[in-house]
Amino acid sequence: MIVVMRSGFAEAELQRVVEYVEEAGLQVHLSRGEEHAIVGVVGVPIPDHLQEDLEILPGVQQVLRVSKRYKRASRDFQPVPSVVQVGGAAIGPGEVAIIAGPCSVESEEQYLSTARALRDLGATMLRGGAFKPRTSPYEFRGLGELGLQIMARAREETGLPIVTEVMAPADVELVARYADMLQIGARNSQNYLLLDAAGTTEKPVLLKRGMAMTIEEWLLAAEYVMASGNPNVVLCERGIRTYETATRNTLDLSAVPTVKKLSHLPVVADPSHGTGKADLVPAMALAAVAAGADALMIEVHPNPDHALSDGAQSLNVAQFADLVPRLAAVAEAIGRGLHAGRADAQLASSS
Amino acid sequence: MIVVMRSGFAEAELQRVVEYVEEAGLQVHLSRGEEHAIVGVVGVPIPDHLQEDLEILPGVQQVLRVSKRYKRASRDFQPVPSVVQVGGAAIGPGEVAIIAGPCSVESEEQYLSTARALRDLGATMLRGGAFKPRTSPYEFRGLGELGLQIMARAREETGLPIVTEVMAPADVELVARYADMLQIGARNSQNYLLLDAAGTTEKPVLLKRGMAMTIEEWLLAAEYVMASGNPNVVLCERGIRTYETATRNTLDLSAVPTVKKLSHLPVVADPSHGTGKADLVPAMALAAVAAGADALMIEVHPNPDHALSDGAQSLNVAQFADLVPRLAAVAEAIGRGLHAGRADAQLASSS
Amino acid sequence: MIVVMRSGFAEAELQRVVEYVEEAGLQVHLSRGEEHAIVGVVGVPIPDHLQEDLEILPGVQQVLRVSKRYKRASRDFQPVPSVVQVGGAAIGPGEVAIIAGPCSVESEEQYLSTARALRDLGATMLRGGAFKPRTSPYEFRGLGELGLQIMARAREETGLPIVTEVMAPADVELVARYADMLQIGARNSQNYLLLDAAGTTEKPVLLKRGMAMTIEEWLLAAEYVMASGNPNVVLCERGIRTYETATRNTLDLSAVPTVKKLSHLPVVADPSHGTGKADLVPAMALAAVAAGADALMIEVHPNPDHALSDGAQSLNVAQFADLVPRLAAVAEAIGRGLHAGRADAQLASSS
Amino acid sequence: MIVVMRSGFAEAELQRVVEYVEEAGLQVHLSRGEEHAIVGVVGVPIPDHLQEDLEILPGVQQVLRVSKRYKRASRDFQPVPSVVQVGGAAIGPGEVAIIAGPCSVESEEQYLSTARALRDLGATMLRGGAFKPRTSPYEFRGLGELGLQIMARAREETGLPIVTEVMAPADVELVARYADMLQIGARNSQNYLLLDAAGTTEKPVLLKRGMAMTIEEWLLAAEYVMASGNPNVVLCERGIRTYETATRNTLDLSAVPTVKKLSHLPVVADPSHGTGKADLVPAMALAAVAAGADALMIEVHPNPDHALSDGAQSLNVAQFADLVPRLAAVAEAIGRGLHAGRADAQLASSS
Repeated sequence: MIVVMRSGFAEAELQRVVEYVEEAGLQVHLSRGEEHAIVGVVGVPIPDHLQEDLEILPGVQQVLRVSKRYKRASRDFQPVPSVVQVGGAAIGPGEVAIIAGPCSVESEEQYLSTARALRDLGATMLRGGAFKPRTSPYEFRGLGELGLQIMARAREETGLPIVTEVMAPADVELVARYADMLQIGARNSQNYLLLDAAGTTEKPVLLKRGMAMTIEEWLLAAEYVMASGNPNVVLCERGIRTYETATRNTLDLSAVPTVKKLSHLPVVADPSHGTGKADLVPAMALAAVAAGADALMIEVHPNPDHALSDGAQSLNVAQFADLVPRLAAVAEAIGRGLHAGRADAQLASSS
Repeated sequence: MIVVMRSGFAEAELQRVVEYVEEAGLQVHLSRGEEHAIVGVVGVPIPDHLQEDLEILPGVQQVLRVSKRYKRASRDFQPVPSVVQVGGAAIGPGEVAIIAGPCSVESEEQYLSTARALRDLGATMLRGGAFKPRTSPYEFRGLGELGLQIMARAREETGLPIVTEVMAPADVELVARYADMLQIGARNSQNYLLLDAAGTTEKPVLLKRGMAMTIEEWLLAAEYVMASGNPNVVLCERGIRTYETATRNTLDLSAVPTVKKLSHLPVVADPSHGTGKADLVPAMALAAVAAGADALMIEVHPNPDHALSDGAQSLNVAQFADLVPRLAAVAEAIGRGLHAGRADAQLASSS
Repeated sequence: MIVVMRSGFAEAELQRVVEYVEEAGLQVHLSRGEEHAIVGVVGVPIPDHLQEDLEILPGVQQVLRVSKRYKRASRDFQPVPSVVQVGGAAIGPGEVAIIAGPCSVESEEQYLSTARALRDLGATMLRGGAFKPRTSPYEFRGLGELGLQIMARAREETGLPIVTEVMAPADVELVARYADMLQIGARNSQNYLLLDAAGTTEKPVLLKRGMAMTIEEWLLAAEYVMASGNPNVVLCERGIRTYETATRNTLDLSAVPTVKKLSHLPVVADPSHGTGKADLVPAMALAAVAAGADALMIEVHPNPDHALSDGAQSLNVAQFADLVPRLAAVAEAIGRGLHAGRADAQLASSS
Repeated sequence: MIVVMRSGFAEAELQRVVEYVEEAGLQVHLSRGEEHAIVGVVGVPIPDHLQEDLEILPGVQQVLRVSKRYKRASRDFQPVPSVVQVGGAAIGPGEVAIIAGPCSVESEEQYLSTARALRDLGATMLRGGAFKPRTSPYEFRGLGELGLQIMARAREETGLPIVTEVMAPADVELVARYADMLQIGARNSQNYLLLDAAGTTEKPVLLKRGMAMTIEEWLLAAEYVMASGNPNVVLCERGIRTYETATRNTLDLSAVPTVKKLSHLPVVADPSHGTGKADLVPAMALAAVAAGADALMIEVHPNPDHALSDGAQSLNVAQFADLVPRLAAVAEAIGRGLHAGRADAQLASSS
C-alpha cells in the first residue's frame, strides 16, 4: 500500500500517517519528493480497513493498493488456466463448449423436445430456468422444483449436463440435488450469503457478472464462493448496463481477455442476454469465440414468439442449427474447435 | 400497448400481429399511416409476455407499453403522498427526518455513545449495520445478532427508532424482531425472494436503489414488497454507478422529484454512500433537502479514521453537529422544517 | 510519479525502469516491499508521455501520477475562489446569479419581451442561442448573426449581460463582438481548437461539461482556455449521460462541491439540460443552490409548447416568477442571497 | 408520430393535442382505450420540433417517433451495403481491410520505416496523426502540415492510401489535399460545423463514434456529412465510456451488427482505442472480424515505449506480424478473407 501526501502537507500530518501504520504492526518506507511525500506500507497482513482509514487522515492525497484484493481467483494463486468439469463436459482452455436451452422451463414437452434437438445439433450442456428472477412481481416466475425435475429428465434422455439458477441460500441444497451446475444470476451476483452458500456445495458454479459490476468486484464475488470451499467457479459475461439503448445490455467482450489475464477461471459469454435481440446473437456469439470465450450460453426456444420469458432474445432451433457450424469454423480458425457434446458420441456409436 | 409495423411491412405480417393479439383475448384498433401501420391493443389483462412476443413477430418495428408496470407503488393507485410511520417517527411530506449513525455497529460502547450524541443533536432515527454486505469476503461482515441487540439497547436509551439491513429471506424474522425498519441494500435490491420475504412482515422497509437500477425497476422492486402485503415502503437514493470516478457513486438527486411524480412513496437520500467522501456530504445533504427528500440518511462515526467500514464517507460528531442547523435552515426555506426527533421533546420536558 | 513493479518482477525489468527514468533526466527513489518494488520518480519537468511509456515496460504493474495534470485551473495555483466579471454581473462566491432565457433566439419580438420579463423578475444575465448544435442536420440551427444582433439589443434595453454559444474557432471573433460571455457547449467541450481560440479573446468563457467528461477532463479543458491567455473561465454542470432514461441527462450536483475543492473557478448548474423536463427544473434548481452553485442557468420561454428547440425543458415566465423567490429563500438559508441583477437597480432608481 | 394521453386525461386536453397537430397541417387518427387515448399523427413533413412541443402539452404521457430521424444513412434509403473506395482500397462487404500505423506521425524516418513494414505485412491502409486532440494542453499535439507531408511520402513509397484526423472546419481543405480519407475523431463527433465541412469535400470520411454517443446520434452525425453532399462515410466503433475502468473504453462490438441492420454504411472497429491496452488488442481484433467489421484500425508503433502518444495501446511490428495471419484465418472462417493491400501486389510483381 502506498500513501501519497498532498502538496503542502504538514510535517505533523505525515507523522500521524507513519504512526497509524506502525500502530497496525506494519513498517513504513518513506520517500520525499519536491512537493509530495510517499509512504510505502510494508508488511503483512494489511488490515482490510486500513486503506479507508488512511484516506481520511489530514494531509493524505490518495492511497494506492498495490496487491490484489482477491487471492484464490487470481492468476498469481494458480498460474495455469482451470478446467471446470460439469458432468461429462469440461469448460476451460481447449474446445469451446455450447450451453443452450430456453430461458424458462415451461413444460416437459417443450423442454424435452428442445433438449433432444439441441443435443443432436451439438450442444455441450443444457440451460433452463426453474426459479426465475423477474423485474415485475406479476410475471411468470418459473415452475420451481417441477422445472428441476423436468431438467433432470432431459439430462437422462440426452446425456447432457444441466445448469440452472438458484436464487436463495435456502434453495441451494434443493437445486444442487438436481443440477450439474448452479447458476448465480446477474441480479444476485453480490448476494453474498448466496455466494457463501454456493461455496459449500460440490457443484460447480456459473457466476454471472452483475449489471454494473467491475471486473474486480466480479472476481471478488468468485472469491466468496472459493473462500467457502468450492474452487469450481466459471465466470459468465452477460452484458453490462451502459447509456446505449439500442441493445438491452452492452456485451463487454473485452472482459474475456481481461479476466483471463487476471484469473485462472474459465469465462463464458452469453450473447442472448448480452444483446437482448435474437438477430444480434449470431454475430456476437462468433465474436465471443474469437475473443477467447471458453463457452457460450445461448438461449434457444422451440417457438420464441410464445416463450414465457425473454422470447425476443431467443434463437429458434433452425437459427441455432445454422449457427453451430459457423461457430465451429471460427473455433477452428483460432485453433480450438467446438466441444463435441453428445453429437459425435452418437455419430461414433452409430458408425 | 401499441404495436408499430415497420415501413414496408407485408399485409400478412400485419395480419399475424392482429391474430396474435386476438388469440390473447384482446381487441385491436388499427391505424394506417403513409408508411407505417399502428396496432392499438385494447382490453385487459395484458399477459406479461405479450410485449416480448410481439416484438419478435416479422414486420414489427417496436412495441410501446402504455400502462405502467407497477400498480401499488404508483401515484395513480394512491394520489396522496404516503406517510410511513417508523416507531414514533414519520417519514413523508411534512418535516424532514434525519437517520444517522455509524456504518457498522462495532461495539456497545461505540454505538451507545454515538446514539446519545446523535439524539441530542436532533437525529430522528438511528442507523447501523449488524449484517454487512462487503465486496470482499475477507472484510468485517458485522456483529450479527449481537449488533441487533446493541441497537435495541440504543433505542431503549434514546427513544429513537432503529433501521438496519437484512440480507437473506431466512433472516427477515430475526431482524424484524429487533429493528423498527428493515433496510434492503443496493446489492440486494433485485433479490426478489428477499423482497417477497420483507413483504410478509409488518415492519416498514427502506429500499435502497441498486447501483444500476432504473427508476422503473426500483418502483417494481417496491411493488414486490407491496404485492406481498406490506405497503410501508420508503425508497432510498444512494447514488448510481456512472463513468465518473471522482466520487464513489453519482448521487442522482433528480430521482427525488422524479419518484415523487410517479409514486406516492416517501424518498430518502443517502449522501454518504452517494458520494463516498465525507467532505462532500454536507453540500449534498443540503441539496437533497432542497430537492425535496423526505429524509436523509447520514453516516456518523465517533472516530471515522478507526471505523471498521466506510470511514472515508462518515462525518464525525462535530461535523454532524455543524450540519444539522444548516439543514434546518434549508428545510425552513422550502417550508418544511426538520423532524424534531427526541431533541425538542427533551427540551419541551425540561422547560 | 510512482511506478509499481508487479509481484514476481525480474531484477532486469526493474533496472530498465530505473534507466528509463534517468534517461529522461529525472531521479528515482527505490523502495522494496515483500512482493513489489516501488519506484518514486523525483524531479521536474515530467515529460507528458512518460506515464504511458512506463506503463508498458515489462514487469510494471501500474504507474500512478501524483501531481495534477492541470495547473492554472487548480486550487494550488490560486487558493482563493475566483470571481468572474461578466459585464456588470459577477459570478463567484457571494450572491448566486441567475442566467435565464430561451434555448434559441427565434425572433426579435420573442426575445425582447422575454428579456424584459426576466429582467423584471430578477435574472442576472440573459442566455439565448444564435448558433445551435443540433443532433439532426434537419433541425433549426439558429438565426446566426441576426440572433446575436437581437441579443445585443436585449442587453441595451435591459442592461443585462448576455451569454451565447460559439461553435467554431472561426466564429469566436464574431460572437465575441456581440456577447459578454462565450459559451462552449457540451458537444464541443473537447473541441480543443475552439478552446484555444476562446482563450485568445478577453471575454469570459462558460464551459459546459461534456456528456461523458470526467471532472479532471473538464478542468483540463478549462486549462486549454487559460493556457491560451484567458483566465476568465466559468464551469457549467449540465448533466452527464448515464443508463437512466427517466431524465434526459443525470444532473451531477456532486460535481459542484468537487470542483470547488479542486479548482478556484466558479461553477454554474444548468437544471434545464440536466433534467430535460420542465417539471423537474424547480427542485433541481433549488438543490443546485443548496449544493453551492455560484449561478444557475435556466431555460425560460414565453411559450414553451411553440419553442423551436428544447421546449420540453423550458419553464414559462409564470413558472420562473414562481421559482425566483424560492431560490432566494434557499440562497439566504445558506448565507448567500441572490445576485440582484437589474431588478433592485430599478427599484433603487425608482425609489 | 404517436401521442399517448395519460390515464385520466381531460377531454379538453385531448382536443388541444388534436388542434395542435392539425395546425401543423397534419391529420390525426384517434384511438381510445380503457384508460388512455392514442393520437396517431398522419402526414408529412413532420416539423422537427413537433415531438417536443407535444410532449409538454397537458395530459400527454409520451410521444413516440415512428420514423427514423436519419434518411441518407438509413438502410431504407439504400438497401444494399455501401462500398467506400479509399484510393485503391475498398471498405465494405467482401474482404476485410486493415488500417494500421502509429498514433502520431513523429518523424519521417519513424513513419516511413513503419509504413514499409506494415505494407509488407499486409496492411490495406495507413493511419497516423498530424493534428492530435489531446486531453491536456501541455501534451504533444502533432507535427501539423509537416506530418501530412510525411504521410503523403509514405503513400508514394508504399502505394497504400492514408487516413488522418482533421480537427477544424478551416483545416478540412488542407488535410483533404494530402489525405485519401479524413478522420473525424470521437471528441469531434458532434462538432457539427466540422461535419458540414467534411461533407463538402470529395474525400471519404471515417467518422469515429463519440464516447457517449448512441447509435442513433452516430448515424445522425453521418447524416450531417451526407446531407452536405458527401455520401462516402465509414463509421468507426472505438469504444464507449462506461463505469468499467479495467479497460480505457468499452469496445461495443454489438454496435457492428446493429449499425449494419440500420444502415448501409461500412463499419470499422478500432480495438486499440477501444481497449487502451496492447495485450487486449489481438483478442478484440479477432472478435471484431468475427462480429462482421468491414475493417480494423490498429495502432502499430515501431517502438511503443517511446511513442509520443498512446504507446500503451500500440502493438509493435512483431506483434502485428503475428496477428495478421490469425485475422486472416478468422476472416476466412466467416467467408470473407482479408483485403490484400499491397502485399500480394508485391508478390504478384515479384512472381
